[in-house]
Amino acid sequence: MNSEELFQNILKKKSFLCVGLDPELTRLPASVAGAEDPIFEFNKRIIDATHMYTAAYKPNFAFYESYGQKGMTALDRTVRYINKLDTTIFIIADAKRGDIGNTSKMYARAVFSEMPFDAITVAPYMGEDSVTPFLSYPGKWAIILALTSNKGADDFQYHTDKGQKLFERVLSISQRWGNTNNLMYVVGATRAEMLADIRKIVPDHFLLVPGVGAQGGSLAEVVQYGMNKQCGLLVNSSRGIIYADSSEHFAETAGKKAREMQEEMAEYLAGKF
Amino acid sequence: MNSEELFQNILKKKSFLCVGLDPELTRLPASVAGAEDPIFEFNKRIIDATHMYTAAYKPNFAFYESYGQKGMTALDRTVRYINKLDTTIFIIADAKRGDIGNTSKMYARAVFSEMPFDAITVAPYMGEDSVTPFLSYPGKWAIILALTSNKGADDFQYHTDKGQKLFERVLSISQRWGNTNNLMYVVGATRAEMLADIRKIVPDHFLLVPGVGAQGGSLAEVVQYGMNKQCGLLVNSSRGIIYADSSEHFAETAGKKAREMQEEMAEYLAGKF
Repeated sequence: MNSEELFQNILKKKSFLCVGLDPELTRLPASVAGAEDPIFEFNKRIIDATHMYTAAYKPNFAFYESYGQKGMTALDRTVRYINKLDTTIFIIADAKRGDIGNTSKMYARAVFSEMPFDAITVAPYMGEDSVTPFLSYPGKWAIILALTSNKGADDFQYHTDKGQKLFERVLSISQRWGNTNNLMYVVGATRAEMLADIRKIVPDHFLLVPGVGAQGGSLAEVVQYGMNKQCGLLVNSSRGIIYADSSEHFAETAGKKAREMQEEMAEYLAGKF
Repeated sequence: MNSEELFQNILKKKSFLCVGLDPELTRLPASVAGAEDPIFEFNKRIIDATHMYTAAYKPNFAFYESYGQKGMTALDRTVRYINKLDTTIFIIADAKRGDIGNTSKMYARAVFSEMPFDAITVAPYMGEDSVTPFLSYPGKWAIILALTSNKGADDFQYHTDKGQKLFERVLSISQRWGNTNNLMYVVGATRAEMLADIRKIVPDHFLLVPGVGAQGGSLAEVVQYGMNKQCGLLVNSSRGIIYADSSEHFAETAGKKAREMQEEMAEYLAGKF
């Protein structure tokens, strides 16, 4: 999928919502917990209830790896299920990978050849050769961490060399490695006011924006400072949707929460396109 | 395992060698490639031939994940095999993980509860809350990327704020998060001369040093600049040992290469302890 196709899919769905699929066994409702593959069953019911409001899904690998082989099987089933249900949905491997070139090449193979992901999140610390192997798959994307939504973002991401913060250097240098059809950036919604400055460096790239909802970011501000001429935003919500209701009605409530976000997004899109 | 136990194990083995277990199906000798679980079979034969010369093993997760479920099963079997064979061997999950707190917690569970690893490599970009969840398992370690051995290390790791390079800041700040019994650092051997400066910041921590062998680093220089009063070094070799011989005698040759490195290490250890 290239950026124009992603933009068109967003316009059709009237949504730039990304739903984070981060299942925790201890939080699953009883009816699902008893299933043969409870993680997949939970995801399936969430996906069935939300996919009409959703431009992207983002399973975070940690939540699957922590359940060993069973978890990875559930991840594999989940991605294939989404892909079969709706091929216009953008599927992100939230894995924060990155290693020396020959190793990143193997991670790329894992998510793009072994599984039908469209994109993978990548940590930039090891530089160019740790990222470029993810850029050689046609239609696939690397999503580089720039400014994250967590407290620890302050530890290193603002390290400033000759007036240039580290996350600004990441945005600036990494643009040379790819283009607007295979590179996105993670920018946390908890720093929405920073989006205006970030848009000066990367006016045309898509941004994946976590931190709306449970982490406290505002959708209106993200749109105000971050939307560009191709929308340019995928806004993620995980816990705010999938754990909005711990009862047997969890999927219905997740669908309702997703629809609320989609309706707000539809207004922002109608106002601009 | 704490740092004193690791040091004593190094003295007993007369080795601070870490063997990187990075199997590639396309590089496996014919006799192994035909096995039911070729990756595990390859690893098993390498381990059988090298464990007497080896203080640590370091499977890189990318090489297993790229083969999907089969690869992860082979990884699981490999770690359990090492652990059963010799409990004094330090086993490193080379996974370069790191995410927001609730997510890093799940990664920690994956390697420390689901699998018997002693340590995991961690990317520092997201700061404190992305690292600390790995530090709450007694006897387990986080190994933080500081100065890596690849070309891309130049892109961000030397970003300098008020005279302090990014990797120096990583070393300096992260020390507050843990101690010399649960924190190590990755410092590439291809920058061995930097070890003298690095030892000024972290005199007492263990360092995991990749880049000797295939990537061109010198063991003598690593020892000269990096060894401390508890040895303080685990020097990794992957391709230089496991792919030293592509014939049916690969395991025998790997054992020979590991013994050569061990014998050189024994001399350095004898000269100091």
